[in-house]
Amino acid sequence: MSNHDLQLSGQRFSVEYHLHGSREEANQRAHLLCIDQTVEAADHIIPSGAIRDHLLGRVVHAETLRSGVHRAVLTFPVELLDGTMGTLLHMSVGMAGLQSGVRLTGLSLPSDVLARMAGPRFGSPGLRALLDVHARPLVCAVLKPLGFSPRELAALAYEFALGEVDLIKDDQSLGDHPFCRFEERITRCTEAIAKASRETGKRCLYAPHVSGPWPTLLDQATLAQRSGAGALLVCPGLTGYDAVAALTRLASPSLPLIAHPEFLGSQYVNPDSGIAPAVLFGLLPRLAGADISIYPTFGLNYPISEEECRDIAASCRRTLGPCPPIFPAAAGRMGAARIPEMVSLYGPDVVFILGSAIRRNPLQIRAACREFIRHLERNDGT
Amino acid sequence: MSNHDLQLSGQRFSVEYHLHGSREEANQRAHLLCIDQTVEAADHIIPSGAIRDHLLGRVVHAETLRSGVHRAVLTFPVELLDGTMGTLLHMSVGMAGLQSGVRLTGLSLPSDVLARMAGPRFGSPGLRALLDVHARPLVCAVLKPLGFSPRELAALAYEFALGEVDLIKDDQSLGDHPFCRFEERITRCTEAIAKASRETGKRCLYAPHVSGPWPTLLDQATLAQRSGAGALLVCPGLTGYDAVAALTRLASPSLPLIAHPEFLGSQYVNPDSGIAPAVLFGLLPRLAGADISIYPTFGLNYPISEEECRDIAASCRRTLGPCPPIFPAAAGRMGAARIPEMVSLYGPDVVFILGSAIRRNPLQIRAACREFIRHLERNDGT
Repeated sequence: MSNHDLQLSGQRFSVEYHLHGSREEANQRAHLLCIDQTVEAADHIIPSGAIRDHLLGRVVHAETLRSGVHRAVLTFPVELLDGTMGTLLHMSVGMAGLQSGVRLTGLSLPSDVLARMAGPRFGSPGLRALLDVHARPLVCAVLKPLGFSPRELAALAYEFALGEVDLIKDDQSLGDHPFCRFEERITRCTEAIAKASRETGKRCLYAPHVSGPWPTLLDQATLAQRSGAGALLVCPGLTGYDAVAALTRLASPSLPLIAHPEFLGSQYVNPDSGIAPAVLFGLLPRLAGADISIYPTFGLNYPISEEECRDIAASCRRTLGPCPPIFPAAAGRMGAARIPEMVSLYGPDVVFILGSAIRRNPLQIRAACREFIRHLERNDGT
Repeated sequence: MSNHDLQLSGQRFSVEYHLHGSREEANQRAHLLCIDQTVEAADHIIPSGAIRDHLLGRVVHAETLRSGVHRAVLTFPVELLDGTMGTLLHMSVGMAGLQSGVRLTGLSLPSDVLARMAGPRFGSPGLRALLDVHARPLVCAVLKPLGFSPRELAALAYEFALGEVDLIKDDQSLGDHPFCRFEERITRCTEAIAKASRETGKRCLYAPHVSGPWPTLLDQATLAQRSGAGALLVCPGLTGYDAVAALTRLASPSLPLIAHPEFLGSQYVNPDSGIAPAVLFGLLPRLAGADISIYPTFGLNYPISEEECRDIAASCRRTLGPCPPIFPAAAGRMGAARIPEMVSLYGPDVVFILGSAIRRNPLQIRAACREFIRHLERNDGT
């Protein structure tokens, strides 16, 4: 069969993979990806003409990085993208992800492709402007544990806000449970934080965890904004990245978004498959429209290195068409002692997540938060 | 802090993990999962009382399966589930998935929890009734390659339908491209298939690929049903499982759903992390409401074994509260020669996916399909 209808502009985007195995296996794999990531068909049903000549992937670069690990860059026609995250992930991960020995390590998108992606509504500059915090890293406290009533969570939120943290987010475990209903939690917590803000004069954004299928997710986001929440926490692994993108495209609600890595773990835990952390926790949430990206931190029990965390941060910040830079978020056992190390690694454009450590003395939460922020101001990286 | 408000029924659901490492590491890991999968907090902020005594996970079984691999069964309060897939995945994969050496291998849900899940609308019995095919395996042909125009895809669909296949699905690469618009493709393909069905007298369901963020996904599904499509192909890895569940809960559209494994590859490709295939490709799509589950087949280039495929099929069929059994789908280089092996493995309640192999002779597609079905009728496993 030949194909007479297909018109392609010739403009292409590129995808970088690390391929594991011998050099010959890697070459074969790269050429198979050109087919599997597009037509996914046996040779006898790929028509001659435009499909074979222009629609299939092309290997434009191949090199051996070290014994058994090879880098290949493939290009595909931009017409295969449509501005959604789903199609971008189909083109870059798609069938490749169903095999071992292939890892997505980079994506390079032309500016008009980038212009069609959702992208962050605020980014780090927008979020700094909202908060009127211009130099130091931001501080985000976490409402937990699951099992607390809305009243107990609100009491904790009040302490954090008196501690003058910038953001307070729900733990991702908080949903709409019979013992802690979404609506009551949001109402009580926003009231408590607003009261504290009036006392301190410090702006503090509350980010409730919104979840569930659309339109539940939208209803929760709408209710959150109407109740006075200042941001939203979303888990794109569970909701789909396009649900995050959809939230950024609405006229209302129009809140900053924090992305959480839930259900995305298997994409990064094995270095020879899935998606490299810089793409998974930097580029993808940024393209989907997150303003802050949370990810597992090096030095704890997660299989992620300091270099990978540095790469995530770089991916949150490098020039990316019309997308403003976003904040990487450093989480996990975050005490004042880790500030110099973290600021030296990340610079000032980072969000510190305060979970359990800041609450070692339950009567001293507000003092501990203020102390943490004072430490930051002394180590603002400037 | 103590907690006075939390009321739990005492009813619990159970989650099974395989933990990799020494027995001592596995025991520590299991106890840590009890905390990480619920409150995810340091000991000093877990209040005494109901949270500590009843909300945390409990290890109810632990055994060593073989050197370095251990099985642990944990239970959690049913109040932590809410009938959505997102919450179920948060509870079972959640923080566990962000580490290596932990694999989700089973879920056991009480009947009233199962009753709240979406579940399949048709299941295999309903799909057999729709198609009036009662004994043999079903046959589903695939419209590809990407790059074909709607007219070319419709011509192919016509051939398949004259070949009397039961279902014709879009390749998951087909979206809403400038060279092949969703609406025109659906219109032309449904017309072509309806015309062939009038000629053969054989019912054939067309399953377009629906994608994108909600409400695009809903708009596509609605348009598909209005145009005469008989089923839908969805990729829960991209859309989120709850988008599949949402489709099953609508009064309209009300079509059988086929789940495709896109973007879920990293969950299964490494045996010491992620989710076991029986859960990932059997239980989860079934709970979300798929009627047919497609997955990578053993014996090709995918890291999946014959035993794992048998386990997927078992998981599609075993008793599961009000959820009817669903069809596993055997895909990949499916020629008549593989029928006896496949029927002996799967029995008759399976869908065979016909992709490239059936089109070796483009002038003989309808004859090749009919021949394949005749082979099946001779090997119906009864």
